[in-house]
Amino acid sequence: MRTYNKKDFPAWQIRRFLEPGPIVLVSSAWKGKTNIMAMGWHMVMEFEPSRIGCYITNANHSFEMIRRSKECVINIPEAHLTDQVIGIGNISGDEVDKFKEFGLTAEPGKKVSAPAISECYANLECKVADTGLIDQYGMFVLEVVKARAPSTPKYPKTIHYRGDGVFMVSGRNVSHREKFRPENL
Amino acid sequence: MRTYNKKDFPAWQIRRFLEPGPIVLVSSAWKGKTNIMAMGWHMVMEFEPSRIGCYITNANHSFEMIRRSKECVINIPEAHLTDQVIGIGNISGDEVDKFKEFGLTAEPGKKVSAPAISECYANLECKVADTGLIDQYGMFVLEVVKARAPSTPKYPKTIHYRGDGVFMVSGRNVSHREKFRPENL
Repeated sequence: MRTYNKKDFPAWQIRRFLEPGPIVLVSSAWKGKTNIMAMGWHMVMEFEPSRIGCYITNANHSFEMIRRSKECVINIPEAHLTDQVIGIGNISGDEVDKFKEFGLTAEPGKKVSAPAISECYANLECKVADTGLIDQYGMFVLEVVKARAPSTPKYPKTIHYRGDGVFMVSGRNVSHREKFRPENL
Repeated sequence: MRTYNKKDFPAWQIRRFLEPGPIVLVSSAWKGKTNIMAMGWHMVMEFEPSRIGCYITNANHSFEMIRRSKECVINIPEAHLTDQVIGIGNISGDEVDKFKEFGLTAEPGKKVSAPAISECYANLECKVADTGLIDQYGMFVLEVVKARAPSTPKYPKTIHYRGDGVFMVSGRNVSHREKFRPENL
């Protein structure tokens, strides 16, 4: 499976990968067990601290693991992992060890106990910064405490879920820098 | 400019357009004035009620207009409107009438006073459902009260912002329906 030469990536710049809205894989650990879930309902909320909001239903096995451990890793898979993403989204962590089942490598987090997924393009290690919106909205507020990504390719080829089994595959990246006011870049 | 034959679209299905993470144009009205802003920090939060979370900085002219009117329209532009999106994101509603400046048509909302943008692929009329997260997180919780979209094309060709003046243009749409458990579709 494809591997990446990842380096530290500035946490405040993770919008480069998340703002376009890809499906991500969220890995977690609790009481000696790990799990992975697929997630499409997330948004960037702040540059510094590097803040992400996301929705996780309590029907997910990962829900309690993330809520209790207060940590997770957001991993960004590229399109060649589509079958694994679908598999992960269609079976519960109750039933299988997802790392084993899908041939993925659990890499120790640098700043969190949750494992990162080696085979993903980028790994964003997160702490749960606010649990106060979970009961009402199923919303977790996360803070990215460590990010790792390769310098090439500069942009991952991601998949974006539309519901109903349909994914949009990310297309070309075009710079329109010259049309922006410098303070807006 | 391209026009669309829009029909009512089920509000609970708007993930089809929003979950992939496109840049959207948010239109609003307050005290006889209208405005448009570009927005990339948003997420789907619930199917029914059809709920969206989004981040709007109070540096935006639209911030107070949406907060006070408690309404807005989320419009989904296709890639041929990239220059208008960039223009809208790089000038303040203080300075110009954005509908006029960018040659866009303000269409009366069906269920909100905020205008929809005719030239966009889809129009999601929203009420602000919760203002309680604005002060702490700049986050607006919206409820989609009316959605309109064309039946063809089934999926819009959207643009997705990466920061630094770079947009990812949405690529092909692929169905993997057969790999999903029916209850997960």
